[in-house]
Amino acid sequence: MGFIGILLLFSSFSLISLAFSHDNAHVLPRPLIHQYPETLIANRLNELDEEVKFQCTSWRFTVEANNLSPWKMIPRECVEYVKDYMMGRGYRIDFERVSNEAGVYAKSVQLSGDGKDAWIFDIDETLLSNLPYYQEHGYGSEIFDPVAFDKWVEKGMAPAIDPSLKLYEEVLGLGFKVFLLTGRSEKQRSVTVENLMNAGFRYWDKLILRAAEDHAKLATTYKSEKRNEMIEEGYRILGNSGDQWSDLLGSSMSNRSFKLPNPMYYIP
Amino acid sequence: MGFIGILLLFSSFSLISLAFSHDNAHVLPRPLIHQYPETLIANRLNELDEEVKFQCTSWRFTVEANNLSPWKMIPRECVEYVKDYMMGRGYRIDFERVSNEAGVYAKSVQLSGDGKDAWIFDIDETLLSNLPYYQEHGYGSEIFDPVAFDKWVEKGMAPAIDPSLKLYEEVLGLGFKVFLLTGRSEKQRSVTVENLMNAGFRYWDKLILRAAEDHAKLATTYKSEKRNEMIEEGYRILGNSGDQWSDLLGSSMSNRSFKLPNPMYYIP
Repeated sequence: MGFIGILLLFSSFSLISLAFSHDNAHVLPRPLIHQYPETLIANRLNELDEEVKFQCTSWRFTVEANNLSPWKMIPRECVEYVKDYMMGRGYRIDFERVSNEAGVYAKSVQLSGDGKDAWIFDIDETLLSNLPYYQEHGYGSEIFDPVAFDKWVEKGMAPAIDPSLKLYEEVLGLGFKVFLLTGRSEKQRSVTVENLMNAGFRYWDKLILRAAEDHAKLATTYKSEKRNEMIEEGYRILGNSGDQWSDLLGSSMSNRSFKLPNPMYYIP
Repeated sequence: MGFIGILLLFSSFSLISLAFSHDNAHVLPRPLIHQYPETLIANRLNELDEEVKFQCTSWRFTVEANNLSPWKMIPRECVEYVKDYMMGRGYRIDFERVSNEAGVYAKSVQLSGDGKDAWIFDIDETLLSNLPYYQEHGYGSEIFDPVAFDKWVEKGMAPAIDPSLKLYEEVLGLGFKVFLLTGRSEKQRSVTVENLMNAGFRYWDKLILRAAEDHAKLATTYKSEKRNEMIEEGYRILGNSGDQWSDLLGSSMSNRSFKLPNPMYYIP
């Protein structure tokens, strides 16, 4: 891993001794000695900060371009980075950029008028945000706890992600059929409907949840099968928005896919 | 575009007047007036710098996750950013990270021993680097000039990308069949072979270039057709390395694909 660099920086730290050993050759007046290590510490910490940011940005690229094998937790070194990204402007700006691209594309498509042009949306981290849950669970640095997460889902309190709500309304307005295709269980249908409605998602053509027989399947397989069914029913899948590559890849892929950012978890 | 923010920052700049108008309410002794705007200018420029970095990083994410419609030039605001990325550590670290992931995966695969396990490599910006050419052509900020680029290719001077050479040797050593699948023309076969050999790529099972009838095809179509042929010949495509999504998506997709970084150009 590229984090060896960071570890080396950490292990070779012992800041004070380093600062003083550097100064031993030149006997400086007292006040300067007191000032110098402080500046050095600040610089070193900045450097470390920059290095962590650099490595974690690189890691995030590897995630978003689907280059990693299935992973269960974010790197420990990147917890603060992911927190800053999710809570700061980074996530919002990236999300908006992808949603805007999707909107431009949606408007550019010539719909056939036969009611068979479809757009698929995933739900979690696509339409609805579970960030309030992940704030309480280390931003992806804890092993996923399905019981605790289901408890959160049962509350039906996940807020809308604004740029998705905007895209959703545009896509509906343009006359696309809207399919919601989620990894959530069929048992969570009513709370999901309630949550969607309360968050402002008030209309869809089909809400597809995992039936009992789908639970053992990989998301990629389950979602591909559901897209295959849409194609068999004569739909053309023109757009697909999801935060996981397993929302987008597989068979019966969409004409254009939109990968929304999510550095917190990975679903194969 | 998210660059509106940057434009606003630019247009609302008029730094000096801003600094002075801010000071008008408090009459300060002369030397302080001279110092204050300078600090302010420095801070503002830093801020602008940070903002450009922020927006261009976001743009790069959109590129690498394949969320943009075909684009012909990098955003003008990002020329310096892309230059810094390509010439600095960023590109190298990102490239190494993806190649390392590919290597870990390659070693984890159980080969069948029937000689039908294949790995595909693209050539340009995957095995060989055209960075010397793009350094002279604005790092993707100029419209692609096929005549000038072909002249560069004819020199046969493109250097190896080190992490790819390492992966290449690992993959060969593990017993994969190696297919090189490039958008270069069949006419460039001999110079391509020479360039590859000189750069250290000395063995492959098949080098596939565009024949006359392939020239009008999109890269995605051409590369999918070639992968289809491999599958028809009984190969299992287990790995695929490329810097363009058109190297990786389409039909007969690889079991695992590795998207190498390339913020300089896009091939549909």
